[in-house]
Amino acid sequence: MTHTSGRTRVVILGGGFAGVYAALELEKAVARGEDLEIVLVNKENYFVFQPMLPEVISGTIGLLDVVSPIRRLLPRTDLHVREVESIDLEAKVVITSPGFRPHPHEIRFDHLVLALGSVTDFRGLRGLAEHAFPFKNLGDALALRNHVIRALDEASIERDDESLRRQLLTFVVAGGGFSGVEVVAELNDFVRAVARSYPALDPREIRVVLLHSGERILPEVAPSLAVFAQDILMRRGVEVRFKTALEAATGDAAILRGGESIPTKTLVSTVPSFPHPLLERLPLAKGKNGRLLASGHLQAEGRADVWTLGDCAVVPMADGSPSPPTAQHATRQAAVLAHNIVASRRGALLRTFDFKGLGKMGSLGHRSAVAELPGGIKVSGFVAWWIWRTIYLTKLPGWGRRLRVASSWTLDLFLPPELVQLKLGGSHGVTQEHFEPGQDVFREGDLGDRVYLVMSGSAEVWKAAQGAESKLARLGPGDWFGEMALLNQTTRGATVRCLEPMDALSLPKTEFTVLAANLPDLRRSFERVMEARRAPPRSSGG
Amino acid sequence: MTHTSGRTRVVILGGGFAGVYAALELEKAVARGEDLEIVLVNKENYFVFQPMLPEVISGTIGLLDVVSPIRRLLPRTDLHVREVESIDLEAKVVITSPGFRPHPHEIRFDHLVLALGSVTDFRGLRGLAEHAFPFKNLGDALALRNHVIRALDEASIERDDESLRRQLLTFVVAGGGFSGVEVVAELNDFVRAVARSYPALDPREIRVVLLHSGERILPEVAPSLAVFAQDILMRRGVEVRFKTALEAATGDAAILRGGESIPTKTLVSTVPSFPHPLLERLPLAKGKNGRLLASGHLQAEGRADVWTLGDCAVVPMADGSPSPPTAQHATRQAAVLAHNIVASRRGALLRTFDFKGLGKMGSLGHRSAVAELPGGIKVSGFVAWWIWRTIYLTKLPGWGRRLRVASSWTLDLFLPPELVQLKLGGSHGVTQEHFEPGQDVFREGDLGDRVYLVMSGSAEVWKAAQGAESKLARLGPGDWFGEMALLNQTTRGATVRCLEPMDALSLPKTEFTVLAANLPDLRRSFERVMEARRAPPRSSGG
Repeated sequence: MTHTSGRTRVVILGGGFAGVYAALELEKAVARGEDLEIVLVNKENYFVFQPMLPEVISGTIGLLDVVSPIRRLLPRTDLHVREVESIDLEAKVVITSPGFRPHPHEIRFDHLVLALGSVTDFRGLRGLAEHAFPFKNLGDALALRNHVIRALDEASIERDDESLRRQLLTFVVAGGGFSGVEVVAELNDFVRAVARSYPALDPREIRVVLLHSGERILPEVAPSLAVFAQDILMRRGVEVRFKTALEAATGDAAILRGGESIPTKTLVSTVPSFPHPLLERLPLAKGKNGRLLASGHLQAEGRADVWTLGDCAVVPMADGSPSPPTAQHATRQAAVLAHNIVASRRGALLRTFDFKGLGKMGSLGHRSAVAELPGGIKVSGFVAWWIWRTIYLTKLPGWGRRLRVASSWTLDLFLPPELVQLKLGGSHGVTQEHFEPGQDVFREGDLGDRVYLVMSGSAEVWKAAQGAESKLARLGPGDWFGEMALLNQTTRGATVRCLEPMDALSLPKTEFTVLAANLPDLRRSFERVMEARRAPPRSSGG
Repeated sequence: MTHTSGRTRVVILGGGFAGVYAALELEKAVARGEDLEIVLVNKENYFVFQPMLPEVISGTIGLLDVVSPIRRLLPRTDLHVREVESIDLEAKVVITSPGFRPHPHEIRFDHLVLALGSVTDFRGLRGLAEHAFPFKNLGDALALRNHVIRALDEASIERDDESLRRQLLTFVVAGGGFSGVEVVAELNDFVRAVARSYPALDPREIRVVLLHSGERILPEVAPSLAVFAQDILMRRGVEVRFKTALEAATGDAAILRGGESIPTKTLVSTVPSFPHPLLERLPLAKGKNGRLLASGHLQAEGRADVWTLGDCAVVPMADGSPSPPTAQHATRQAAVLAHNIVASRRGALLRTFDFKGLGKMGSLGHRSAVAELPGGIKVSGFVAWWIWRTIYLTKLPGWGRRLRVASSWTLDLFLPPELVQLKLGGSHGVTQEHFEPGQDVFREGDLGDRVYLVMSGSAEVWKAAQGAESKLARLGPGDWFGEMALLNQTTRGATVRCLEPMDALSLPKTEFTVLAANLPDLRRSFERVMEARRAPPRSSGG
């Protein structure tokens, strides 16, 4: 796209509270007659109302009620639903990912607003990228909800395999801040409510666990509120584990620092949050954690045409300390930023960000919450929950959305929770999996549905004979196993057990078959492995 | 799972109208004191209320309002959310797909009810499996809805590429029966309504096309109603093409018999419907189209313990003609079937299915419909639509569901349609694509994001030089192309154009990189290709 108009073009990257409110404030300036062109680039076409995202788990509100189409919120803004690929500050150009046709897509800017927020990043935590559920966007919330229902569906028919059933009925959330507490509260309410529709399940087998590294949850609020929240959660059946850190994850367990392992198929991690990776490559001043340093005017250091706000920026408050990463701060920053872009165009005075915060609130699910109001007033329980609902309902963008949420909340008072398990996306093709020592990749007698390739670490192949197990082989990087599944044999002939922390690629049978049929080299390398294993003593895998 | 109880176990396969209503009727018998154990196997944990499925496209009702959790509908039934892998009639065992742990899962039965319905099967239609949207279940409806919104989002920023924009704004539905007409009506209403939120789009560029092989649409109803429906659709902007058959599809066009090609990125096919593939392998008598022959008692021929009903069966009506595949017939068959299972257990007389049908209805979107009522009364327009809504609302299972739908319909009267584009599932990994002669796989200058492997057919590599294109190479089965994308070069160095109908595997860059890094043989075969192409005269792909 070329930059044809003579107007000043402001390009905003990111559609969270920071980016959307910056555009909203700039639209007001346009309505007042400013000659601005506003472009917003976001990878989704909707804005997520983050405070209500945990409610998607339980379906208290409709699946789409928590999001608003950006086009409806911002009628004067040109929305590009794309990922940002790169930013060239000198050429004043943003390059986005391709759409249906893979040609390069460039957006020129006069002013650039960086509102890219934070991303989940599990680097340094073994197995979390592969096996933990993040909880940041609508897709995450829907995926978690569907997975939880699937776990219940499966637990109700796995009656002969107690260890699997207990794994399926254990739900672990890591992180005791607002986000983790809201997620565990909704998850716990939901699981225990819908379990009543599963007559084959024993509710006493359900475990919901919250892992927190500190001595009390909710470090954001006063100790009395944290204690209130802890009591509520525990009374409802959540096991709260203090001074406990998550160290690794596999498809079968959450592994804690110190070595304890909690068998589970559902691990949610709300903890690791990093600035957007695009910022790394930008030649702009950054603070610790890689966030961009902003002036009190919301400009990036040393630039008059690059602005930043929200969670990706370090914005000083009046006392010099950085703004916390909350919606109320981002929206106030947006107003100052929009004013300053207009002022800088006219050569007028810039405003300085100055906002102290109005209070803090967190929902505890099922008609309870904690809140710290302005003036240090602390509220908890039903009253706090009522305040929480009312404030957020009025903050929801658009009266249509408010009406929908109010109507969902009303129906929720007397209807049971939704338990439809939506299958999203289906099979994932080539998957990366992480295994910890002692864990079985598969067991003798299991159905053979996928093939594995060891990338790092090691495993051993064991076979039962005369009541004892004997070791057949050791597998290391570059070794294939599980390939017998491709010959029409349907059950595994041996058990493969992880020896050292192992990363493996796994391919479903269908995917592997189509690749092998079309890649002669791959098929040949595979046939060699099978040939070698046919000699009984070396026979490994299944 | 072993069969421990002494009760008679009825295992029902399939959770559509036929299977769910059979279970409902059997539950009534259990409530009356019959000693039956009811097991239902379905791949989803919900029942889809098919008549309202097209409304999911426009979001007139909530995304989940059209489905009901089977556990809520059938509290006395043991639901197994699994795919059926095989059926052994002699051993009286059903084997299902594995769950979280891949061990074999067996269900023994005394009576087996086959209610597997029909499946979409594009065999024999080139490229449809790869590029057409089926429309049978909730996942299909959500995928179509999201794709349509994505097409609008993309069209609104592809301002410099008119041919792509027109492809994006053309929506083609194949099949002029009830299903195709309802889909095209909702799709047309939705696209034209939400397009108002895209100031950059010219509504005159939107095309919605219905392809129908016959001389009039809706062959199920009287000609006068069909003409009414055609008029309504055309007045709302749908192009209705009669005596037109779809022959093939690519990612860029719908190709008609005779050779005409309609450029589009959105092709929905409601046509091909086949019995479930499991039936093929069963040693039971079948009619034409592979459906199971049922007696008037709903038993499979020659079996006292195998029952069948619904769309997978040929069930004779009183006059000997087969029942049409409708919900009203399936639910009446279910009542007879349940009665007969109980009667056969007690040695009582079996009942014979005898139902003529009550009428036919089809929605035309936006407050219009056609209906043929009992006694041959024909109704069309608003009155038919009002009858349609009322009847289906009362037929919806569960008062909670009815309340939700009624509330959604009410809000829909004054709220604009939802336009949130949910990204479901994300990248698909290894994908199969179909190309037709003359079609560009990619063009010189495009971004290089994937690698292709020719499975069948052929293509040519062209490069522009001195204002003309010259042919560099010809590609056939087993050839790779597009591999330069893996070297950090981001744009294609040549155009690849399909010569003969071509099927190709395509791998996204990330997926290919991880496979190549871990499969030395694959990497080597690849390096050989690149080596050969570095010599300028053979250089192909890009």
